[in-house]
Amino acid sequence: MGDVMTKPADLVIRNGRIVSPDGVVTASLAIRDGLIAAIGDDAVMPRGAETLDAAGCHLLPGIIDSHVHFREPGYEYKEDWGTGTAAAACGGVTTVLEMPNTHPPTADLDALGLKQAAARRQAHVDYGIYGLLDEHNLERLDSLAAAGVVGFKCFMGNTFGDLPAPSDGAMLEAFEIIARLGKRIVVHAENPSIMARRQALMEQAGRSDPLAHLAARPAICEIEAVGRAIRFAEWTGARLHIAHKSSKDALDIVRRAKARGVDVTVETCPQYLLLDSEDMKRLGNVMRVNPPIREPGHAEPLWQALHDGAVDMLATDHAPHTIAEKTDPNVWRCCCGFPGVETAVPLMLTQVAAGRLSLAHYVRLSAVNPAKAWGLYPRKGALQVGSDADIAIVDLAREGRVSAAALHSKSKITPFDGRPLKGLPVATLVRGQVVARDGELVGQPGWGRAVTQQMAAPAPRNTSWTSRAIVQSPRF
Amino acid sequence: MGDVMTKPADLVIRNGRIVSPDGVVTASLAIRDGLIAAIGDDAVMPRGAETLDAAGCHLLPGIIDSHVHFREPGYEYKEDWGTGTAAAACGGVTTVLEMPNTHPPTADLDALGLKQAAARRQAHVDYGIYGLLDEHNLERLDSLAAAGVVGFKCFMGNTFGDLPAPSDGAMLEAFEIIARLGKRIVVHAENPSIMARRQALMEQAGRSDPLAHLAARPAICEIEAVGRAIRFAEWTGARLHIAHKSSKDALDIVRRAKARGVDVTVETCPQYLLLDSEDMKRLGNVMRVNPPIREPGHAEPLWQALHDGAVDMLATDHAPHTIAEKTDPNVWRCCCGFPGVETAVPLMLTQVAAGRLSLAHYVRLSAVNPAKAWGLYPRKGALQVGSDADIAIVDLAREGRVSAAALHSKSKITPFDGRPLKGLPVATLVRGQVVARDGELVGQPGWGRAVTQQMAAPAPRNTSWTSRAIVQSPRF
Amino acid sequence: MGDVMTKPADLVIRNGRIVSPDGVVTASLAIRDGLIAAIGDDAVMPRGAETLDAAGCHLLPGIIDSHVHFREPGYEYKEDWGTGTAAAACGGVTTVLEMPNTHPPTADLDALGLKQAAARRQAHVDYGIYGLLDEHNLERLDSLAAAGVVGFKCFMGNTFGDLPAPSDGAMLEAFEIIARLGKRIVVHAENPSIMARRQALMEQAGRSDPLAHLAARPAICEIEAVGRAIRFAEWTGARLHIAHKSSKDALDIVRRAKARGVDVTVETCPQYLLLDSEDMKRLGNVMRVNPPIREPGHAEPLWQALHDGAVDMLATDHAPHTIAEKTDPNVWRCCCGFPGVETAVPLMLTQVAAGRLSLAHYVRLSAVNPAKAWGLYPRKGALQVGSDADIAIVDLAREGRVSAAALHSKSKITPFDGRPLKGLPVATLVRGQVVARDGELVGQPGWGRAVTQQMAAPAPRNTSWTSRAIVQSPRF
Amino acid sequence: MGDVMTKPADLVIRNGRIVSPDGVVTASLAIRDGLIAAIGDDAVMPRGAETLDAAGCHLLPGIIDSHVHFREPGYEYKEDWGTGTAAAACGGVTTVLEMPNTHPPTADLDALGLKQAAARRQAHVDYGIYGLLDEHNLERLDSLAAAGVVGFKCFMGNTFGDLPAPSDGAMLEAFEIIARLGKRIVVHAENPSIMARRQALMEQAGRSDPLAHLAARPAICEIEAVGRAIRFAEWTGARLHIAHKSSKDALDIVRRAKARGVDVTVETCPQYLLLDSEDMKRLGNVMRVNPPIREPGHAEPLWQALHDGAVDMLATDHAPHTIAEKTDPNVWRCCCGFPGVETAVPLMLTQVAAGRLSLAHYVRLSAVNPAKAWGLYPRKGALQVGSDADIAIVDLAREGRVSAAALHSKSKITPFDGRPLKGLPVATLVRGQVVARDGELVGQPGWGRAVTQQMAAPAPRNTSWTSRAIVQSPRF
Repeated sequence: MGDVMTKPADLVIRNGRIVSPDGVVTASLAIRDGLIAAIGDDAVMPRGAETLDAAGCHLLPGIIDSHVHFREPGYEYKEDWGTGTAAAACGGVTTVLEMPNTHPPTADLDALGLKQAAARRQAHVDYGIYGLLDEHNLERLDSLAAAGVVGFKCFMGNTFGDLPAPSDGAMLEAFEIIARLGKRIVVHAENPSIMARRQALMEQAGRSDPLAHLAARPAICEIEAVGRAIRFAEWTGARLHIAHKSSKDALDIVRRAKARGVDVTVETCPQYLLLDSEDMKRLGNVMRVNPPIREPGHAEPLWQALHDGAVDMLATDHAPHTIAEKTDPNVWRCCCGFPGVETAVPLMLTQVAAGRLSLAHYVRLSAVNPAKAWGLYPRKGALQVGSDADIAIVDLAREGRVSAAALHSKSKITPFDGRPLKGLPVATLVRGQVVARDGELVGQPGWGRAVTQQMAAPAPRNTSWTSRAIVQSPRF
Repeated sequence: MGDVMTKPADLVIRNGRIVSPDGVVTASLAIRDGLIAAIGDDAVMPRGAETLDAAGCHLLPGIIDSHVHFREPGYEYKEDWGTGTAAAACGGVTTVLEMPNTHPPTADLDALGLKQAAARRQAHVDYGIYGLLDEHNLERLDSLAAAGVVGFKCFMGNTFGDLPAPSDGAMLEAFEIIARLGKRIVVHAENPSIMARRQALMEQAGRSDPLAHLAARPAICEIEAVGRAIRFAEWTGARLHIAHKSSKDALDIVRRAKARGVDVTVETCPQYLLLDSEDMKRLGNVMRVNPPIREPGHAEPLWQALHDGAVDMLATDHAPHTIAEKTDPNVWRCCCGFPGVETAVPLMLTQVAAGRLSLAHYVRLSAVNPAKAWGLYPRKGALQVGSDADIAIVDLAREGRVSAAALHSKSKITPFDGRPLKGLPVATLVRGQVVARDGELVGQPGWGRAVTQQMAAPAPRNTSWTSRAIVQSPRF
Repeated sequence: MGDVMTKPADLVIRNGRIVSPDGVVTASLAIRDGLIAAIGDDAVMPRGAETLDAAGCHLLPGIIDSHVHFREPGYEYKEDWGTGTAAAACGGVTTVLEMPNTHPPTADLDALGLKQAAARRQAHVDYGIYGLLDEHNLERLDSLAAAGVVGFKCFMGNTFGDLPAPSDGAMLEAFEIIARLGKRIVVHAENPSIMARRQALMEQAGRSDPLAHLAARPAICEIEAVGRAIRFAEWTGARLHIAHKSSKDALDIVRRAKARGVDVTVETCPQYLLLDSEDMKRLGNVMRVNPPIREPGHAEPLWQALHDGAVDMLATDHAPHTIAEKTDPNVWRCCCGFPGVETAVPLMLTQVAAGRLSLAHYVRLSAVNPAKAWGLYPRKGALQVGSDADIAIVDLAREGRVSAAALHSKSKITPFDGRPLKGLPVATLVRGQVVARDGELVGQPGWGRAVTQQMAAPAPRNTSWTSRAIVQSPRF
Repeated sequence: MGDVMTKPADLVIRNGRIVSPDGVVTASLAIRDGLIAAIGDDAVMPRGAETLDAAGCHLLPGIIDSHVHFREPGYEYKEDWGTGTAAAACGGVTTVLEMPNTHPPTADLDALGLKQAAARRQAHVDYGIYGLLDEHNLERLDSLAAAGVVGFKCFMGNTFGDLPAPSDGAMLEAFEIIARLGKRIVVHAENPSIMARRQALMEQAGRSDPLAHLAARPAICEIEAVGRAIRFAEWTGARLHIAHKSSKDALDIVRRAKARGVDVTVETCPQYLLLDSEDMKRLGNVMRVNPPIREPGHAEPLWQALHDGAVDMLATDHAPHTIAEKTDPNVWRCCCGFPGVETAVPLMLTQVAAGRLSLAHYVRLSAVNPAKAWGLYPRKGALQVGSDADIAIVDLAREGRVSAAALHSKSKITPFDGRPLKGLPVATLVRGQVVARDGELVGQPGWGRAVTQQMAAPAPRNTSWTSRAIVQSPRF
């Protein structure tokens, strides 16, 4: 090196506490060309064209929310790529993976093209787009994968947008195809038949109160669907992701599958960890979501599962609707879901402050694990040299409250409204660019880019099942 | 007792080897009023109005075949209660449990009444009749139970008679109802959607050869359905019976469920133990059956499961069709199943002779366990004082061959045709009456009676699942 | 049979309720030449030279107590074969298996001969004699087996008679030898080193109160020894029996071993099911026994294990001492154990009356399972034709109280003294001879005989361990 | 930062491939004051007083060998702290944890002081020193912990130095004490009694050939001891480490214990992965080591365990002896063990080159996991800012051969002599100082320092055992 002068960095974030799953290091972090160029003791670091003093703050790898609904195209009155990613940016989230139950659903190249264009034009943060797996698009899965979907979503239960669940036959065949493509399949694991019948019974009985929704979707809906999805994954070798795990009852099914080597990852969401059906008595239909927020007694085992690895990650199921749609007093007409991408980080940091979770483990759950599951690591999910400079700078001491009215989503309603917070994002960087500061947007639409993906080689499986459909199918 | 003379018995079977699950005792057996009146050393036994010398033979509790299709009402050209029970009697079977996919299906009291009348008039052996569990008869399950069905059958996969599988919602609700009724639910555990799709693919590919049937029904069809049925049973507390287990692949699911205390019993059939898909190359469509007889490698684990208790019992799935129906060269048009009630005992005794199975364990699998599972024990399934004198007298040394032409079923076709046998029934007694001797019918139609049933109290369950649908349902 | 008159029986027991593990049958039972000659409806039964009316009573297979200490030779002041077997007879016990820690210990043919002579001369009930497995008698195990020991006892923990535990090396080698001999090895599974050290600590701390004994033998003593014995059995293929399971803590170790196919049987005793350390505060040192009766919370899981099969049988560990030996206020000087062979049946029948246990399952635990474990079945343990007419006639309605003073053992002290009973033996028959009636002895010393034994073939094992010591040893 | 000039680093290693368990990053690494000061893109890195071009090479966190015997004090003719740590440095090892079976054994403060002085004076790499856990030093464990031992070693089996195994009572009590102290207990898990007896049998049989040693120590020795140590750890809550796992047979015991939450870590060594008893036929007594290198069939499951986490780490059990001591033709007189600290890294890199192991996983096994297990992380075991600049620079393309004669240990004999290597250390840095280069020592004795340690808080345990010895002991 000798006589060569060190080049300046574009930005140096000085003296923050850099968090990884293995712990915390106080250091400065230099950014150049959107990448992390160096991490080091401030004394030896290059000067930066700009600097940002992070003393007292923590730097987390930019949070990845692998489960958001941004509603565009089709339902822009609920949300669009601009407002959705603005909410993400203000909430410390630097990468979102967006769900395909838009209109048209992301089931073919045309629909994907529409969504890619909308995202490219407006996104404040980086993004991936899921393709839909439905009854009728099996022959389009290859082209969707080639066009860059980050994974596939299979709605085993009915969902917003009136997308019917695929039949088991189509689902299994799709799993075979996607196993070959190497992509991960996200399942909304609820049994639609049981739910439909129970709901009809409830309606016949004249019930339309908030708790009727929970009564119509007992945990067996989730147990059955989780079990079925895991068997299909085990049979085909497909990578599986269980979205929004809401109940304790199928956790052992997951644990056993992992022990057998099935490549299954599981997410839960803040609402399942922090609320229960008792809150619904107070909050009413705003809490309506699928799967339902369950009786007291489920949250604690889900926390345990976050710690022992049965649940791999946190996401939000950000599902915006208008206030009117969320306040219909008839639970069956009230839309399901609520916004979450902006509130998840402060809600969970508040749990860190309360001692329920270490910051290092939060980073594992919210950045490292999703990045690995979708092949984004180490470009995303890591604060290390060469990674994208996606950073959530947070102040664990700063206090506040959730304000529904102040959300950057178009949806100004959340069951967390008014909830006290301790631990707030103070700046969000995407590829070196500050896109939000102190909860307000500072970036420009269109800065966000589609993620690039490299899935790891499949792990060896331990299943004892002899025959594999894939060798018997006349098609493959 | 003193001065009172011993009364004579109606019949004394002298010096046979009486088999129980715990071993073999040489003794005489006295019958009075259709019941076993005494078992004892010949020297102290009462005289009988008649005697039968069983020296050299074994007395087994009358074999119970809990899975037969006798086709009446509706398809009497395939079989009727007279021919079906004649075949049973000649095969050493003294109690049959008959399936509801007749025409009309046994889904309501009228249909049950028709079948009960046919059976009462013609049956040579005792019988139970299953009610159907289908999408539309949930409100009739109570009355069917009250009218004496021995259990319920749920065709999860499609079957002869074009009975569609009930939806999961109806199935779960029916399980809740039947859990309360205490009856056992038999499931044909195959996933219809996967099978339908695979079959369509095979047909599109121009295949109609015998092995196409197997290719259309990979073991995942069974794995999925077994898993789902067990979860529903675990959730509701219903008693479950898995019919005709054909593959090794879901045995561990069963073992784990049993360890958790789920009341699940499992049957397999001689065809899954003695044949494999290699035989189909030789025998062709005659072997078509649901679930299919699988590739080599499944039979051995099924034998193991018979020994370790994962599989509880043997039945036949006796499914008669005409020769024409069984010999259509297009596998999709060939009817599924073949007769078995007359051949099962000699086929399995031949296995006893070959050392694969002890006679005591055969008795457990073919008489004791089914009797206990359906609440017939000790009236059926036991050679002890006070039990019905249902007895299969067998000669383990006698040799023969399966002869399709000689079957007493209307269906004169079986994949076992010509197979050498060692160990044959020499006499079958139902409630003390000889109904068959040396493979020929000697009884009169109408001797058979409906079984009476007393289900044991449910065992404590070990499940960790908190909520039970039954407490949440608006109906119950 | 025709013209031959039925021969009379020696004794007919009329109209009792005959209990088997599978249920209860009301019938008469005829005995001839000491064997059960017939069981049947009273109307068809032979006349008997004598008759006994058992109406209202239950006939159980004679109870087998596989764990008694009769102290002779060497400690006849505590008990002898006459008093011990008299107590057994009066308590409904027809077969006892006696432990080798007498003086001389039953470690060689001379000592065995002494004990056989004493038993032959005095025994009121049938008996088996255990050989000792100790550090120094490995080369005598073959001859002991040939001379008829019913099994071997290995004191892993120290015991009465100051027999030191064998080293692990000797124990493992003995297991190899005994695996070849086919006998079952009973272990007293406590770790002597931990106990010795803890006791020394307690004594240093000045404690000699009753609960100090429990404090010196925490459950880890049992856990460790149970685990070690099972590993040695799994490695060598030896049949193992865990005596007097006292704690809940190693039950899962047993369950896993059974699932792997290790041939391990387990006993517990009434004192571990009916007492806990709280009782010791009231009863003091009389309750001192090894292993100790534990804290509240252990009995319930032991009951559960009796029901799910983790524990196979009941025995008593009948361990008589003089009143003076049992009332030393210094717990370390107080002798361990107390008499049990006479009180076990009424204590457990009282539990049957209270609904904790069915009579059928009690028979399984106390007669069938021990008979099978030691190769005595069906000669012992079964009320069926051809079996020894060993019968406990009991009246479930009869009430009474335990009276220490009235025990037929020389040891007139028991922690159960005064305990109310419901369900008493009213007659005990050994090979057709009434040896006790209404709790009083009516037989003659010397009627008891040594049992004959036929061990079943070993079950296939499921262990994954590759190498077996037996093939590597230079000796075998 | 603005106008502040970047300070120079002491050393900049340029353009190496920096390996972590999560992958590889090409970057430069700056060192200042012995710590890693920065990692970054070379373009933005500070200049260094010195630079080292690592292009084409990989930088691993300095390898930690948690199992070495350096023989001083007492057996300096075999090895001393100078030669032992020189060998470590030349082999890429930057931290060693040294075993207490020296003379005097490290069982009290005096002995520890002697060893600390020797190490301080001569060590080339950093080190930790284990205290001994033996029968007689329980009251010294606290003071040893206070004086800085890195953990405790318990020789359950006999070992070099004639240290007898502690009794179970002392061992359990020591586990209770050390659980409180928070240190990890390393066990040499072999059952001494079985081994002694088997060896005596072999000797009586006249065998003294190399394979006699293996025959005298069947895997049951290891199975039993591993099981016992785990039970004691589970009971007391002590942290456990199983040294030199040699057989496949107890891996499932470990897996189950980990699933229950027992804090048990396991190491294996290159000799158990790369050799088997077939090699002993060729190599003879040089391969004698405890536990023995086993029959073919054990290595593959150990590799599997390295991948699935049952085995946590690699160490060497570096056990130097003189050539004479290793070549006695009588296996019983031949000393056990051989040097390994210098050969382990190239042997395992050769496996990396062969594709059996990723470099990232090797780093986890050899640096990260041991650092975490002994509380050294992230000071050791990590290449991140603020960590000690302990670095093994390796060239995966460089080839060579093991040369016993060239070893820096005093012991010039190894079973790996002549073995081809691909992947060699090219430089070893300890706290920023190059201590070895191209396999030759360049550092000065005394540079090595004792490690400082911070054990993590204990994880919650999942055991169902109720009572804990610790609450019952009169002492604690």
